[in-house]
Amino acid sequence: MAVSRRTFLNTVGAASLGALAARPVRAAPATTRIDATKLRERIEALSTFGRPAGGSFADGVSRVAYSDADVAGRAYLIGLMKAAGLEPRIDPAGNIFGTRAGTDRLLEPILFGSHIDSVPNGGNFDGDLGSLSALGVMETLARANVRTRRPLEMVVWAHEEGVAFGRGLACSRIVAGDFKPADLDETWNGMRRADAIRKIGGDPDRILEARRTKGSFHAYLELHIEQGGKLEQARVPVGVVEGIVAIDKYDVTVTGFANHAGTTPMPERQDALLAAAHLTVAVREIVTSEPGRQVGTVGHLEVSPNAPNVIPGMAKLTIELRDLSSEKLRRLGEAVRARAREIASATRTTIEFVPLSLAQPATAAAPVQAAIERAAAGLSRETLRLPSGAGHDAQMMAQLGPMGMIFVPSVAGISHSPKELTHWEDCANGANVLLHTILELDRT
Amino acid sequence: MAVSRRTFLNTVGAASLGALAARPVRAAPATTRIDATKLRERIEALSTFGRPAGGSFADGVSRVAYSDADVAGRAYLIGLMKAAGLEPRIDPAGNIFGTRAGTDRLLEPILFGSHIDSVPNGGNFDGDLGSLSALGVMETLARANVRTRRPLEMVVWAHEEGVAFGRGLACSRIVAGDFKPADLDETWNGMRRADAIRKIGGDPDRILEARRTKGSFHAYLELHIEQGGKLEQARVPVGVVEGIVAIDKYDVTVTGFANHAGTTPMPERQDALLAAAHLTVAVREIVTSEPGRQVGTVGHLEVSPNAPNVIPGMAKLTIELRDLSSEKLRRLGEAVRARAREIASATRTTIEFVPLSLAQPATAAAPVQAAIERAAAGLSRETLRLPSGAGHDAQMMAQLGPMGMIFVPSVAGISHSPKELTHWEDCANGANVLLHTILELDRT
Repeated sequence: MAVSRRTFLNTVGAASLGALAARPVRAAPATTRIDATKLRERIEALSTFGRPAGGSFADGVSRVAYSDADVAGRAYLIGLMKAAGLEPRIDPAGNIFGTRAGTDRLLEPILFGSHIDSVPNGGNFDGDLGSLSALGVMETLARANVRTRRPLEMVVWAHEEGVAFGRGLACSRIVAGDFKPADLDETWNGMRRADAIRKIGGDPDRILEARRTKGSFHAYLELHIEQGGKLEQARVPVGVVEGIVAIDKYDVTVTGFANHAGTTPMPERQDALLAAAHLTVAVREIVTSEPGRQVGTVGHLEVSPNAPNVIPGMAKLTIELRDLSSEKLRRLGEAVRARAREIASATRTTIEFVPLSLAQPATAAAPVQAAIERAAAGLSRETLRLPSGAGHDAQMMAQLGPMGMIFVPSVAGISHSPKELTHWEDCANGANVLLHTILELDRT
Repeated sequence: MAVSRRTFLNTVGAASLGALAARPVRAAPATTRIDATKLRERIEALSTFGRPAGGSFADGVSRVAYSDADVAGRAYLIGLMKAAGLEPRIDPAGNIFGTRAGTDRLLEPILFGSHIDSVPNGGNFDGDLGSLSALGVMETLARANVRTRRPLEMVVWAHEEGVAFGRGLACSRIVAGDFKPADLDETWNGMRRADAIRKIGGDPDRILEARRTKGSFHAYLELHIEQGGKLEQARVPVGVVEGIVAIDKYDVTVTGFANHAGTTPMPERQDALLAAAHLTVAVREIVTSEPGRQVGTVGHLEVSPNAPNVIPGMAKLTIELRDLSSEKLRRLGEAVRARAREIASATRTTIEFVPLSLAQPATAAAPVQAAIERAAAGLSRETLRLPSGAGHDAQMMAQLGPMGMIFVPSVAGISHSPKELTHWEDCANGANVLLHTILELDRT
């Protein structure tokens, strides 16, 4: 429970989505559009914070959370928010908030935003598009002199990529209440987490005050690049996220027996890498053995002693399974483990699994999905419902209230790479869908 | 061609095995035996040079070539050779030789020995047994007052394990002529190879004088632990090596496309590790698809970027194939490459092979094999013919003259490990077979 959240957030209420009767408000014209040119200029300007030396926009960005580039990028964004009259506030976790008042102070706000930190060697759209579009929404409504019923609250989450400390989505996790003070003692690159939080303007001594309560917003909305290729392939400009997948991860250790690669006959071997190879193939087979959009990946494998002339005695690997259904993940995981037992027996190795549920599935609220679809229809933009295979701050916010996400196409499905690209027209589309979804939600 | 080899080796002749008529010599009694207690004591004493601090014999040894432990172990052995009246000589490559004159100075010597350097964390029998048994043969004949017709020349090869510089079997390679002066500039652990050679008493300025000519010995003999489990399984105390396997190695690079493990659907993946896993399984399948003693190993695999949540974009691995038949290796290699093409196509990756022939097969000379069998029969010891899957200095010597090897059982087939063990009785058996094989060969 947030003890003194109101010391920095004073716009939240207690009612939940749908519990409110519609009241007359001054409506924005259906023709209202965000300034696409300004959005592009700002994405380009933000890209200079963390750009490789001597590089251009196409060379991507390394704006890892808590780095000097991150601090500089945040300062740039806070400056824009101030110029837009938003009076930006930084919560104790380092997340940046800005509120535009509504006509009814008793209503909970509509919360929307994204993040601006990146992975090392990342791209210029992941997070940046959603953050700068959120600001664009605020400015567009001010310019059009439109006042919503509900307060509008934009957020720029800190440390979404989870590169620096602990798990990903770090600072929205804190807001969702998934944090313990001991986490402040973690170190990364010689920096204590508490000091890292201070570096971006947070207050580790009051870290638990960053928590928000359930129902403290009317809805959470996030515009983001798809990071996959479905929209591009379907030639649909707007994705309506059905939910964010759950992730089950297994740390697997295969133990065989290291021995001479020349003198050990084939039948006598206990080859840990051979077993790991069978398991890698099995993961693919099992994941693709039933219809659905589940994915499974062996992304990490290390071999010991890893010498060309020694039969591997040990192999450590990770198995990651993702799907919207936790039940399906459980079933797939069991199938993989059953296959692993057969492989261990056939290769005379032992295979141990350490299971770890990295993320629970987060379902997008049906009324929010419908609002996105109405907004897109009003803009004559086709939509496609799809799951998000990547994690997002929206996942954390789904624990506190109704959540929805808008996706725009990623060229060739590439992300977390300097090659990450979303066409400017698609960026503008997404920002306008965000704007009109907010207006749709303001009507409920 | 050795230019002035005779400046340090003056006992070699020009005739080859079998070209000589038998001449009457003073024969050693068939009951002559080496001193098994002394052999054991010396193996135990040698084990102290490079023993882990505070450890015992069972903790193995790290006596890597050119280390201080290696220098100390060599000094211990040179001392024993001097005490036996052998006038040890160090050739320019650092190999230690000691000769016992025969009755006929015009005959080429019988050359025999092994090495005393070890791998890091190695055992106390690999090399040591053959080296100290060679010395034991010299002492036994002196004690029995037996004079052979031929000169007997023992050798302790330097840097057999190839841990420090370049390829294995390094200093017998130099004697076989496989060395260029530029190799002296290699560095390892901050030490130039020339300085390393000086450290063990060699002379890098005269390195090429270490070469010996073809036919410069009557036969080369080496007693060694099997390093495999065949003799133990067959309960046969003496192995007669048929030859040393050829090694073909392939450095393989699999190129896929690194992408988000959450957002990239299974059918669109170009997973380099998945392809590498299929290839690892295929190597096993192909190698075991026909009868024979060939082996194949994927011992080294590295994955990039090797993160649990990224589909691997690249994998590098090694494939090592070993057999006595170069033709079989070529055929197996072609089958692996054909399968790799199918895997690349199915996984939408590219797979590149860089082939490297690490060792040509070395056949043990039939008359030497027969001599070993006669010697063992004279000692009432059963024998088993088998190939050597590991490389040995004998491989290099096979390029210069008739070669043969005697194997004794390795408990559980383990070597290159502190767990390496050959029972003392088997050690003594091997040394006696070495002694009597030398006497057999002296009769031809």
